Amino acid sequence: MVHIFFLFFFLLQLLSFPSHAAVQDFCVGDLSLPEGPAGYSCKKPAKVTVNDFVFSGLGVTGNTSNLIKAAVTPAFSAQFPGVNGLGISIARLDLAVDGVIPLHTHPGGSEVLVVVEGTICAGFISSSANSVYFKSLKKGDIMVFPQGLLHFQINGGGTPAIAFASFSSPSPGLQITAFALFKNNLPSALVEKTTFLDDAQVKKLKAVLGGTG
Amino acid sequence: MVHIFFLFFFLLQLLSFPSHAAVQDFCVGDLSLPEGPAGYSCKKPAKVTVNDFVFSGLGVTGNTSNLIKAAVTPAFSAQFPGVNGLGISIARLDLAVDGVIPLHTHPGGSEVLVVVEGTICAGFISSSANSVYFKSLKKGDIMVFPQGLLHFQINGGGTPAIAFASFSSPSPGLQITAFALFKNNLPSALVEKTTFLDDAQVKKLKAVLGGTG
Amino acid sequence: MVHIFFLFFFLLQLLSFPSHAAVQDFCVGDLSLPEGPAGYSCKKPAKVTVNDFVFSGLGVTGNTSNLIKAAVTPAFSAQFPGVNGLGISIARLDLAVDGVIPLHTHPGGSEVLVVVEGTICAGFISSSANSVYFKSLKKGDIMVFPQGLLHFQINGGGTPAIAFASFSSPSPGLQITAFALFKNNLPSALVEKTTFLDDAQVKKLKAVLGGTG
Amino acid sequence: MVHIFFLFFFLLQLLSFPSHAAVQDFCVGDLSLPEGPAGYSCKKPAKVTVNDFVFSGLGVTGNTSNLIKAAVTPAFSAQFPGVNGLGISIARLDLAVDGVIPLHTHPGGSEVLVVVEGTICAGFISSSANSVYFKSLKKGDIMVFPQGLLHFQINGGGTPAIAFASFSSPSPGLQITAFALFKNNLPSALVEKTTFLDDAQVKKLKAVLGGTG
Amino acid sequence: MVHIFFLFFFLLQLLSFPSHAAVQDFCVGDLSLPEGPAGYSCKKPAKVTVNDFVFSGLGVTGNTSNLIKAAVTPAFSAQFPGVNGLGISIARLDLAVDGVIPLHTHPGGSEVLVVVEGTICAGFISSSANSVYFKSLKKGDIMVFPQGLLHFQINGGGTPAIAFASFSSPSPGLQITAFALFKNNLPSALVEKTTFLDDAQVKKLKAVLGGTG
Amino acid sequence: MVHIFFLFFFLLQLLSFPSHAAVQDFCVGDLSLPEGPAGYSCKKPAKVTVNDFVFSGLGVTGNTSNLIKAAVTPAFSAQFPGVNGLGISIARLDLAVDGVIPLHTHPGGSEVLVVVEGTICAGFISSSANSVYFKSLKKGDIMVFPQGLLHFQINGGGTPAIAFASFSSPSPGLQITAFALFKNNLPSALVEKTTFLDDAQVKKLKAVLGGTG
Repeated sequence: MVHIFFLFFFLLQLLSFPSHAAVQDFCVGDLSLPEGPAGYSCKKPAKVTVNDFVFSGLGVTGNTSNLIKAAVTPAFSAQFPGVNGLGISIARLDLAVDGVIPLHTHPGGSEVLVVVEGTICAGFISSSANSVYFKSLKKGDIMVFPQGLLHFQINGGGTPAIAFASFSSPSPGLQITAFALFKNNLPSALVEKTTFLDDAQVKKLKAVLGGTG
Repeated sequence: MVHIFFLFFFLLQLLSFPSHAAVQDFCVGDLSLPEGPAGYSCKKPAKVTVNDFVFSGLGVTGNTSNLIKAAVTPAFSAQFPGVNGLGISIARLDLAVDGVIPLHTHPGGSEVLVVVEGTICAGFISSSANSVYFKSLKKGDIMVFPQGLLHFQINGGGTPAIAFASFSSPSPGLQITAFALFKNNLPSALVEKTTFLDDAQVKKLKAVLGGTG
Repeated sequence: MVHIFFLFFFLLQLLSFPSHAAVQDFCVGDLSLPEGPAGYSCKKPAKVTVNDFVFSGLGVTGNTSNLIKAAVTPAFSAQFPGVNGLGISIARLDLAVDGVIPLHTHPGGSEVLVVVEGTICAGFISSSANSVYFKSLKKGDIMVFPQGLLHFQINGGGTPAIAFASFSSPSPGLQITAFALFKNNLPSALVEKTTFLDDAQVKKLKAVLGGTG
Repeated sequence: MVHIFFLFFFLLQLLSFPSHAAVQDFCVGDLSLPEGPAGYSCKKPAKVTVNDFVFSGLGVTGNTSNLIKAAVTPAFSAQFPGVNGLGISIARLDLAVDGVIPLHTHPGGSEVLVVVEGTICAGFISSSANSVYFKSLKKGDIMVFPQGLLHFQINGGGTPAIAFASFSSPSPGLQITAFALFKNNLPSALVEKTTFLDDAQVKKLKAVLGGTG
Repeated sequence: MVHIFFLFFFLLQLLSFPSHAAVQDFCVGDLSLPEGPAGYSCKKPAKVTVNDFVFSGLGVTGNTSNLIKAAVTPAFSAQFPGVNGLGISIARLDLAVDGVIPLHTHPGGSEVLVVVEGTICAGFISSSANSVYFKSLKKGDIMVFPQGLLHFQINGGGTPAIAFASFSSPSPGLQITAFALFKNNLPSALVEKTTFLDDAQVKKLKAVLGGTG
Repeated sequence: MVHIFFLFFFLLQLLSFPSHAAVQDFCVGDLSLPEGPAGYSCKKPAKVTVNDFVFSGLGVTGNTSNLIKAAVTPAFSAQFPGVNGLGISIARLDLAVDGVIPLHTHPGGSEVLVVVEGTICAGFISSSANSVYFKSLKKGDIMVFPQGLLHFQINGGGTPAIAFASFSSPSPGLQITAFALFKNNLPSALVEKTTFLDDAQVKKLKAVLGGTG
């Protein structure tokens, strides 16, 4: 039956196939156009190629020769416009021995971490009762950090560790608490008043992290 | 014409008015039923009264006789189940002279603050460049704090201040950084490692705020 | 330990701090750029100042010398672009003695009202059974009006009343029923046919409110 | 190649096919379980049959022997639990000659109307400037009514009209303005105060529509 | 009382009516402006007319003289910009005798189908257990197809059939499986490897449907 | 100043710290309670431990001794209830030499794939023009697959490959096209009619994959 079906309509199909106008399967970000609350404007579909959906930047080891002996390499919509509007993004974490991703939040999304090399001690703090949830994660373990809560990752072993962190937003943000407090021009008196920290401590860390005021 | 319309159908309407089954206009939270990702289960509509939509708890001055000389009185869905599922909630802030709402985030929503008494110095820190945005607000001024970002409010005058903070979620959460760090059993070594704070500072604040470890 | 940590890396941190590309913490509306379904396009982050997040327009008493003896002063995204994309906005209500905010809806959001001066009688009507929920609110009381439902506010005392209304949208809209019916060119016959009102009544109110047809 | 592929693994596949745990493809509403902000609880997938996804109630002509000479037959999640959680629903409109769906809103969703029989004059009123948009629709025409705005449908011809209205919510609600004003116990004085209507008009319509007070 | 109310304020209302700035009731798509993840940019409200909300394209019988003896006529945001941003759209299906809408998905939304002429056999396949739900639908029957699942519609009678399909998105997309496999340049070897189909079958259908490789 | 601040209020803080009622930081799924459209009901916060947020199931190599020489090990909300309600989940892919994840969709979410071992050839097909986007991915490369679109992954090298796939939903679903067509009781005639496949091909694959009818 199907054979006859095809034979009979072989010519017809050349004439009048139902054609469907473009629909929005994806919205690769065009960083040169205006940005809106939902993300970047879309690149014209005709100019989109497979390279817009592939990113090789996470294949490179992050530079961990720094204060925290760690590196975060994001593939958020600003770096990887292919995820624009799709509700997801990813980043690579490199933690040298003794490395740490300091206490931080992602204002715009939840995170799932998967350890692919080494051991990572990770944890988060809930808002309701300041409860602490932390655990040592070995290769292949995953941990979820609910949206907006303070969390951290520390190399928990004697070898470098690598992990991938996925986010429920193409642009989750990253606010490292110590940097927010000490790596800007927020006046020391305000920091002290709003954190209970001593003046000496605040000034010391401002010096270390490059803050003023 | 309308007159005739009514006279003619006066009896008919008693017989066969289109009747519409219940629809979900609201979902007053029933705190005794299971909670889901979108909020509490709904109270049966037949049991809902106007009192489910009205809350008088914010008419009372909060107790500011405490460490921070301030009080936050929430009307989130846990206190005011009428907002359950509606994408909004509100809280009252009382700031005695020298009072402060310490640096904190709301993991689940943005905030608009309106000052109704006194003067409040408020600010927030962006995640991208640790930029600081702060200003002194007088009665009637409003300020918006984007979702998940660190912010604070300080009494900026010589008299008590009152404000109302509205949130884009019925359950925005409240994570006070100092409490998250020092008012729990998060080991001091972890706090130090993830914040760059000195051991003495951490132990001192743990003692003050009631933390252990 | 932390001390050594800092001393050792004091120079290193100048070289290679992990730097994070801009992320979308907020999207202050640029009213000169195209608007989309999610709101206005964003002002360039570099041009954003604290003044984009602060609005003083609600500190001024609204002009109540009008038909309704009341005023609504909105701080929606069109007036206060700082809330663009953040799922929240606010408005000030002024009700002179005998003032009324006539029956209306906000097509795009739920509302929480907080009374800060005087007494307000407020209520809403559910859609499922045309149930009425109304109550007299005193200073400090809050009431929630679920999305899209008809509601009203009336000065319920002998003194002026002030309230702040927060919304679960940066642009909730405001559709006053009487204005929608009588303050435009909707033909009287259509109004009558779709509301059951008498022709005389419709023409009288069209005259009062400035409608034609 | 594919042939060999199959032959070789013919036995293997009986042993160890990757099996995937249940995921939530749909959530047919179980009206006996608690309802939440996102809709009804789900019927157990094992008990779901094709009949949960099919509804024949819209194939029946609605009873138009009533005041409005019209009928709305909804297939919202309360009547058709298969749409629960899926962001869509539908209703059938029957308009006898001279029939009207009076001015109303759907608090929870936008509507697309498609006329399948007869002629319908439909329109809506915007909130910003009380602008009126209305037009006569013939068979096959569609019209969209944006969320929460007042709109109406009137039989515009000399024969019965039928239309289907789809909604962007499984439970959009339906608030008919005249019923909200006159078909309940909302005190006449409040109706008059909040709508500018005359006392006589209000009492007359309360009598017609079955309201009290 | 209301009479006096009006007489007294007759002049006043000319002076100082509360006026409300434009708010976003709708966002008719302007296809010439940048598109974003949430849809097209909005046409200026002042240029919007009722014709932006009405579409007559679905009143025309689709051309079914083709391979599938069927036609899908969409009124998605690309064809009917009035639905842009409103979470809904619609399409017309025409199925000649023996016509079929081949197995397909809508990546971006759920669908409700209503049969308005003839008989349609429709079904979908769940992802969790590959369960099949299908049924013969007569005039007036509706069926819902949950988001993203494979489904089909076949003319189940001896006369042409017509249906309207509504979607929970203004741009739901349409991916016909056979066209995705055979009507493009996806190499035959890849098709075979990822579908288990025989080489001969793949090449035959590529020839019929116009694919290469 | 801060020192005096603390000394002075040392006793006070024991008395009257502002305490905040529980808020919903997370909603670990309780699979024994009713499920709703937004996910599983929440486990009581008091019973939640760190183990609810950690999952070790992805650390184990999937069994690839099967027809497709591949395995998908999901950590969706059904397997890893910690992600319930958080808009994210993850799965592990194991591809033996010649292994393939056949053409499939995730009805409920977008996917980001990161290759952690070996080489994977991956691609997807757009709905608008049946365009194909595919590329060979080496270790560290990521690729995004927009929501609901057909895609596949094939081992592209001579060694086993491993990847992690993150999803923008805690329960994205997985619909493998060949299984949906041939591994159930969908009648062969319907498969043929809706896919253009030959009867012999359909019956052969039904036999191989365990389908009937």
